[in-house]
Amino acid sequence: MNEERGNQMKQYQMMELSFHAGEPVGSQALVDLNAVFTKDGVSISVPGFYAGGGVYKVRFYPREAGLYQWKVSGIIEASGEELCEASRDGHGMVKANGTHFQHEDGTMYLPFGTTVYALLHQEKALTDETMGTLSRSPFNKVRFCVFPKHFDYNHNDPEYFAFEKTEGKFDVHRPCFVFWDAMEQRLAELGKMGIEADLILFHPYDKWGFATLPREDCLVYLDYATRRLSAFPNLWWSLANEYDLLDKSMDCWKEFARYIAAHDPYGHLLSNHNFIRFWDFANPETTHVCIQDKNVEEVKKWTKKYNKPVIYDECGYEGNTAQSWGNLSAFEMVNRFWTACVCGGYCTHGETFVNEEEILWWSKGGTLKGESPARIGFLKELLYSFPGPVTYLDDGKSPDPEMMEQMKGQEIPGVTDNPMFQAIARLPKEDLERLVASFRNISGHYGDEIFIKYFERMCAGKGTMELPDTGKYKIEVIDVWEMTRKTALEGVNGTVEVELPGKEGIALLAVRM
Amino acid sequence: MNEERGNQMKQYQMMELSFHAGEPVGSQALVDLNAVFTKDGVSISVPGFYAGGGVYKVRFYPREAGLYQWKVSGIIEASGEELCEASRDGHGMVKANGTHFQHEDGTMYLPFGTTVYALLHQEKALTDETMGTLSRSPFNKVRFCVFPKHFDYNHNDPEYFAFEKTEGKFDVHRPCFVFWDAMEQRLAELGKMGIEADLILFHPYDKWGFATLPREDCLVYLDYATRRLSAFPNLWWSLANEYDLLDKSMDCWKEFARYIAAHDPYGHLLSNHNFIRFWDFANPETTHVCIQDKNVEEVKKWTKKYNKPVIYDECGYEGNTAQSWGNLSAFEMVNRFWTACVCGGYCTHGETFVNEEEILWWSKGGTLKGESPARIGFLKELLYSFPGPVTYLDDGKSPDPEMMEQMKGQEIPGVTDNPMFQAIARLPKEDLERLVASFRNISGHYGDEIFIKYFERMCAGKGTMELPDTGKYKIEVIDVWEMTRKTALEGVNGTVEVELPGKEGIALLAVRM
Repeated sequence: MNEERGNQMKQYQMMELSFHAGEPVGSQALVDLNAVFTKDGVSISVPGFYAGGGVYKVRFYPREAGLYQWKVSGIIEASGEELCEASRDGHGMVKANGTHFQHEDGTMYLPFGTTVYALLHQEKALTDETMGTLSRSPFNKVRFCVFPKHFDYNHNDPEYFAFEKTEGKFDVHRPCFVFWDAMEQRLAELGKMGIEADLILFHPYDKWGFATLPREDCLVYLDYATRRLSAFPNLWWSLANEYDLLDKSMDCWKEFARYIAAHDPYGHLLSNHNFIRFWDFANPETTHVCIQDKNVEEVKKWTKKYNKPVIYDECGYEGNTAQSWGNLSAFEMVNRFWTACVCGGYCTHGETFVNEEEILWWSKGGTLKGESPARIGFLKELLYSFPGPVTYLDDGKSPDPEMMEQMKGQEIPGVTDNPMFQAIARLPKEDLERLVASFRNISGHYGDEIFIKYFERMCAGKGTMELPDTGKYKIEVIDVWEMTRKTALEGVNGTVEVELPGKEGIALLAVRM
Repeated sequence: MNEERGNQMKQYQMMELSFHAGEPVGSQALVDLNAVFTKDGVSISVPGFYAGGGVYKVRFYPREAGLYQWKVSGIIEASGEELCEASRDGHGMVKANGTHFQHEDGTMYLPFGTTVYALLHQEKALTDETMGTLSRSPFNKVRFCVFPKHFDYNHNDPEYFAFEKTEGKFDVHRPCFVFWDAMEQRLAELGKMGIEADLILFHPYDKWGFATLPREDCLVYLDYATRRLSAFPNLWWSLANEYDLLDKSMDCWKEFARYIAAHDPYGHLLSNHNFIRFWDFANPETTHVCIQDKNVEEVKKWTKKYNKPVIYDECGYEGNTAQSWGNLSAFEMVNRFWTACVCGGYCTHGETFVNEEEILWWSKGGTLKGESPARIGFLKELLYSFPGPVTYLDDGKSPDPEMMEQMKGQEIPGVTDNPMFQAIARLPKEDLERLVASFRNISGHYGDEIFIKYFERMCAGKGTMELPDTGKYKIEVIDVWEMTRKTALEGVNGTVEVELPGKEGIALLAVRM
């Protein structure tokens, strides 16, 4: 047995212990290896894994600086201690904090994600190109799959898969170490760029059998994945892409969620992505809402229902595919980002411009061609300039069915005597709900410091903001496409009316002076 | 008693008999006057009305040329005969014909309507200007109200109302003859321009009491209106604008529909317009579907459900109001027209550009300022160039919940063994319905002669048309905003793939050569 020191232990960074020993007998995934890290009397138990070539590894993610004792047991018996330096530049894992996200050190994190499903399954030169593009892009999260993708524009087999084959069949007990090493290299590179890796564990676009692995095999795969990957700070678990297209029961998905939560010592973010049927985000292991849907203004509904952060992780792609899912205009992509973000949620980008090489960003990566990323970057810069995250602001102008029911019996001058109130109050419940749903109020705020209102495709010539009656605000008119900010008023408060240019894609921003 | 000859009787034109007698005793609306017109042994009974100033009138609309005997009885006793000339230029009333409209002589009529709610309640100079604008516009239908409108941008009282006041209260038994004469003059002018008058009988935007007339008064009003107006060929009855905002029961509205149908001898088109809750278009007196809603692609749903023509009579307005109902971009207005029309339905325009004079086209008329009418005219010209009306074309690519249910038990190679089919077949019914609703297929056809497909805001770089395997077609790429038609292919059939410019607002047209 041999022990090798990993990297110098630093707060918020993965450290690794590496040992040499013989090949495991039987499963190469389910090896008997465990480590306990102890600091100030508090112990964290982490499993180790077999990394191939007679190498066993234990990875640990230290949340705190200080002196750690570690003790490895099982196939390897070893112990030692390590001084963990305090972080100078890292901020720690991203966690949910109410309906928003933040790093462990309290730094605000606003996800501006993109999508490269088959990032890991392309030739190295292309993946390198993709990483270069990401480094120059505004995106700070990327959704990608462990398993390769078989779908339109995706007809190339990868060189390596997550498992080796035994008797012609992929065998979860024989991880393909080259694949996992390569994946981890990309995870680490993304981490250095400040990009969160939203790792998709299952998906339906399959011809190799990964989508139909038996339950027991899935658990072995999840076991191995959690052993290897949990110590990566920038990792998010996405149970699946379009989970409802896979032939697994809800109980099965919930078991997977519990399994991951039990085997990931650090509580990485975890969610599940739908085709049509939204995941049950009330699920206790689910940390945030992850939705495929174009109705991004429903951020407010899901935020209220689940009290968790909401990401529209798929709302369409900027591109020109013949298929309807991939031909949004750049403006519409930007429009959806603004709508989701101003309502206190988040949105994810994707790009699908068809080309002869069949290298579409949304699955294979390469180079971005669209016009939306620059505008998404403009929005990101704006939101990061605020002192805190934007939360939905109800303007109180949309009729509240419950409140109206209560008011019906009363006589409130100026309200219940208004014929329009009476007319709306007479509507049957389902019609009232349709009416409420039709009211578009895309407004957000951060405390009393920031108010923001987005007019979507409405070409209003005037906009109103309801600001606090105290304090002085500066009002800017923002053109989300032209990326311009023009000061309209300064030193105002209360109800403020502002001239607007009467075109699509306009926002009003009020910042307390 | 005096008899005056009306205009020379012509097929498809209103003729009028006019008589002098004393003022009616009691109600000026419910006068005892009836006429019977007989030709070739077939009699049509029509009521007359009091027109003020001791004048009584009987109006008749002859569908057929030939010799008519007429006999007037009641307050006036008279008879005569009239030779009705065959029409040389008129085409007769517009009627529903299946899910489309046509004139009585079989000429195709495609409604391209606009909206000027308070057309009748403005100063003469403004109404004259409106009529001039209409005459130069593409619109061949206009929605307007009998009663004046009290709402945002509508604060001016009209000079005349439909009734005079008795003891300070509007009295349905005392029609304001100046008002009715002026309204009829506008109806006649519209008729000469080939514009259908979609006359709105009730609406909620009221401060004078017309919205809350007692049932008996409503029936008197409808009685008088049907007596006076039924013989106008270009008249449509719209029970209400936003009927569901008025405090009347569904039974009441159905009684009104029956009442009008019973009192209008010619069976003018009749429908009812909603705020939120769509009217029950299965109602036997209702001739067509009239909807306020922005989801114009649902034309196909309502066409199938009711087997009547479908008009989205209110889908938003081109303009720049601060209120969300009136600030569509011109492109979006045009987009909605194309979507509705290609799906085999119809759409109605409106315009709301705010100005200091508060003269917004949608209620007061004046001059059109927007950019959509020219594009609507382009679409109208295109559709009128076809040999018949466009009907929705199901592309068969949207999963059919019922069919999938049937297929589940079977083994159909290439279908039931497809993992995507299996996945979709596993979806619960409500999710499958959401999925079906998300499929956008905006396609129409006229027999095998015309196929048209509209891509809405999809920026596809390629489009496919499924044409018959026989016949030769010419394919054009249409830019609905630029109003250009470019020939892409000639002499093709079967499944045809066409390069598209990858921008919003593109249509493909295939015309059999």
